[in-house]
This record gives sequence, C-alpha cells and structure tokens, in this order.
Amino acid sequence: MKKQFAVIGLGRFGGSICRSLTNNDMDVLAIDSDEDRVNEFSSIATHAVIADATDESVLKSLGVRNFDHVIVAIGDNIQASILTTLILKELGVAHITVKAQNDYHEKVLRKIGADRIVHPERDMGQRIAHNIMSNNVLDYLELSDEHSIVELIASKKMHDRTLIELDVRANYGCNVMAIKRNDDIVVSPQATHTIREGDILIVIGADNDISRLEKHLLMD
Amino acid sequence: MKKQFAVIGLGRFGGSICRSLTNNDMDVLAIDSDEDRVNEFSSIATHAVIADATDESVLKSLGVRNFDHVIVAIGDNIQASILTTLILKELGVAHITVKAQNDYHEKVLRKIGADRIVHPERDMGQRIAHNIMSNNVLDYLELSDEHSIVELIASKKMHDRTLIELDVRANYGCNVMAIKRNDDIVVSPQATHTIREGDILIVIGADNDISRLEKHLLMD
Ligand SMILES: Nc1ncnc2c1ncn2[C@@H]1O[C@H](COP(=O)(O)OP(=O)(O)OP(=O)(O)O)[C@@H](O)[C@H]1O
Ligand SMILES: Nc1ncnc2c1ncn2[C@@H]1O[C@H](COP(=O)(O)OP(=O)(O)OP(=O)(O)O)[C@@H](O)[C@H]1O
Ligand SMILES: [Ca+2]
Ligand SMILES: [Ca+2]
Ligand SMILES: [Ca+2]
Ligand SMILES: [Ca+2]
Repeated sequence: MKKQFAVIGLGRFGGSICRSLTNNDMDVLAIDSDEDRVNEFSSIATHAVIADATDESVLKSLGVRNFDHVIVAIGDNIQASILTTLILKELGVAHITVKAQNDYHEKVLRKIGADRIVHPERDMGQRIAHNIMSNNVLDYLELSDEHSIVELIASKKMHDRTLIELDVRANYGCNVMAIKRNDDIVVSPQATHTIREGDILIVIGADNDISRLEKHLLMD
Repeated sequence: MKKQFAVIGLGRFGGSICRSLTNNDMDVLAIDSDEDRVNEFSSIATHAVIADATDESVLKSLGVRNFDHVIVAIGDNIQASILTTLILKELGVAHITVKAQNDYHEKVLRKIGADRIVHPERDMGQRIAHNIMSNNVLDYLELSDEHSIVELIASKKMHDRTLIELDVRANYGCNVMAIKRNDDIVVSPQATHTIREGDILIVIGADNDISRLEKHLLMD
C-alpha cells in the first residue's frame, strides 16, 4: 500500500514538501486555513482541504490519524503549530515532522513528542554561508560533526594535472570520490585521471583536512 | 585582508547566515530596519545597524559598495528586496546573493543582475521530502540532475553481510563510498567489509540506480 502523507500549512516550505512528495507519486493530503493557498494546491496534491488544523474535530473527520506521516509547516503562528502537533500526537499519528521558528518553539515541540523538528531557514543559512565564505565550495553534506563531503571547483593549480600528481590523499588526508565535468560524472576516478578547467571535485574527509585542502590547494 | 560581508534582513535565514559567518571569524555588517532584530545581533555581528536598506544614501554612508559580498535576506516585502538589490547593483557591489520568495521574484532579481538567488524554504522542503519518503534515506546531495550522493541506513537485509556479498555496484550500478558507524567513518571500504546493524552507507550513483537500490535492497 502507498504511504499516506498530510502536509498542514502550505507556505514556501510546506508547499515545497507537498510538491516534492506528489512529484514522487506519493498520496498527499494538503491542508491550509487560507483558501487561496488551498486552491493553488488543489491541482497538485491528491486532496486539498481548507481547514483550521487547531480544530480537533476537523482533523478527526479528515481521518488524519491513519496517515503514516504528517508534516506541520505552520509558520508565524507558533501557538497554532504547537496546538496542531498536540492534537496529532493525541490522535496517535505515527510520524510527525514540525517546522520550528526558534529554539523555544523547538523545546516545546520536543516535549510534546514531535518526532522530528526542522529549521529550514536556519539550516539553509548555514549551507549558504559555507558556500559564500569559500569561492570554491559549491555544496556540502555533513556526515558527522567532523566529516563532510564537499563539492569543490578545481582551482588553477589543479588544471591539467593528474590525481596522482596532486596526491590529495597523502597530502591532505581527503579522498576524491568523483569528478564532475558538465553533466558527466566519473565515480572513483583513476590516479591517472587529469583534472581540467571547470571540473568539480567531490571530496570526502575530515573537516579540518578539507579546510587544509581548500586553503593550500585552492587559493589561486 | 579579511573579506567583508554585509547581511541585510535578520530573519531566520539572514540571521543564520550572519551567525555562521561570524562563527567563522568573518567580518559581518548586519542591517535591519527593525530595532529589536538589530539589538539581538549587536553582540554577534562585527557591526549591527538599524537602517532601511531601500534608502540609497544610508547604504552609501555605510560604505556598502566596498563589501565583497552582500546578502539580501529581506522576506515578505518583495518590493524592498528588489529595490535594495537594484541599489547594491548600482553601487557596484561585487557579489550579491538574494533570497527569493517565489519564481516571479526570482525572475526580476535575475534581470537586475543578482549574482545568486536562493530559495531556502523550497530547497529545504525538497530535501526533507526525500528524507520522509524513504525511511532509509537520511540526507542527500544532488550532484547533477541525474546523480546524487545519499546517506542510507543499512537495512536488515544488509546486516552481517560483506560488500562483496551484496555487490551493490554490479547489481545496482551504485558505489558505496563510505560507511559510518556511530561517529567513525570508513572511507572507500574494502569488499570484505561487513555491514552491521546501525551502519550508514554513503552511496553515489545515478538517481534511478539509487532508487532501485532503495526499493530492492532496503525495504525490510
Ligand atoms: N491553524 C492553521 N491551520 C491550517 N493552516 C494554517 C494555520 N495557521 C497558519 N496556517 C497556514 O500555514 C502556512 C504557513 O504559515 P506562514 O506563512 O506564517 O509560515 P512561514 O514560516 O512564513 O512560511 P514559509 O517561510 O515556509 O513560507 C500559511 O499558508 C498559513 O495559512
Ligand atoms: N527595507 C528594509 N530594510 C532593512 N531590513 C528590512 C527591510 N524590510 C524588511 N527588513 C527585515 O528583513 C527581515 C526578514 O524579513 P521577513 O521576516 O519578512 O522575511 P521572512 O522571509 O519571513 O524571513 P525568514 O523566513 O528568513 O525568517 C526582517 O527582520 C525585516 O525587519
Ligand atoms: Ca515569514
Ligand atoms: Ca561539521
Ligand atoms: Ca520563511
Ligand atoms: Ca535529482
């Protein structure tokens, strides 16, 4: 059976989740108290309903308790977000993900049993800041507190040199996992692979090793 | 010389960028028209100033033209965001990153020459949706339209089996680049490496291959 999702609050964040889930053929019930928002999503979501999610009887009659995962993406109205989460919890919804607006909001959500609390603007701010600080880092994935995967634009110092000449592993303790050239990706490139202008390296390693690599090798 | 950054608009997104940049010892001028916001950031940013960014003379007197990178994170007031970007462009700021609220906003920003346009809520919505759809996918990095790196929780089917037994590459065309166990990361694990309960696999591959891997191997 297909999993059933409900998204409550169709702002930019909730709306994006709703679109992504339906793009991937998931069943999505979209809920917002704003009629215009609901109209926008009536052709996107499986069902779109105008409803105030803080009204327990409404959530009950929509059968929300049977959904596998409910996402609460109500924003500025923190009280409504908290009350909605409480009701979903009482109804026995299996998985509840909630967007938090600040640390205080997060603490309350944690206490009432939200399974996952997300801070989209804050997380994306951190990603963009990383990106802005280094001219070479395009994107990154944090694997642990100390390890990351980063996408780095090859610097002039790297152009027309092979991986073995650069010896990133011996010199910096990082591994080049893949190289991207336009839309082609070479996974686990050979030591004799030559880096060209415009290439993007996918590098895995400890954060301090990656920083060293960035500083020493990439500053043109 | 240290790079000079300015962040205009200290909401969740702009505030997060400001914090991340200062945490990394960057010089940051924080600007908001709201006094409370500015007070909050006076102890965080290098300088924090109450100012309406749509007032050209104010931006001039703050010397914004000399900054290396200005981030415009004004949200709901789209007109103010556009006008601020226009002024920064006219002042000759080298790099301008702007938060867009929707596609129309993005189009205008592109036309007036913003260097980078970001949609934090939308991008994070897509990431979270990926994560929610699959119980095994923890996080992912999109390398291209067709390739990604994903963090997958090892399923029961994988426990106590070696990589060579699973032969992910031959069977699914994906590569296991690393395995995470608690906070330890094994990069480029050997074929004889045994996967244990709780292990997290870092896999690189084409999106359709990764989906196949998820579907066939991970559904417990
Ligand atoms: N009680 C409620 N029941 C249902 N929907 C609600 C309720 N309260 C608010 N919403 C809806 O939640 C949506 C998101 O709220 P809001 O725009 O305040 O959040 P936001 O954090 O600014 O969003 P984003 O940054 O993701 O665009 C809005 O469309 C709003 O109509
Ligand atoms: N003309 C302006 N000059 C300076 N700051 C401004 C101006 N207009 C708005 N701001 C500030 O921009 C900040 C962000 O705006 P707003 O809260 O509308 O955006 P948002 O998209 O909801 O933010 P987020 O989702 O990142 O929290 C606010 O602190 C606001 O005071
Ligand atoms: Ca808002
Ligand atoms: Ca880190
Ligand atoms: Ca927002
Ligand atoms: Ca993709």
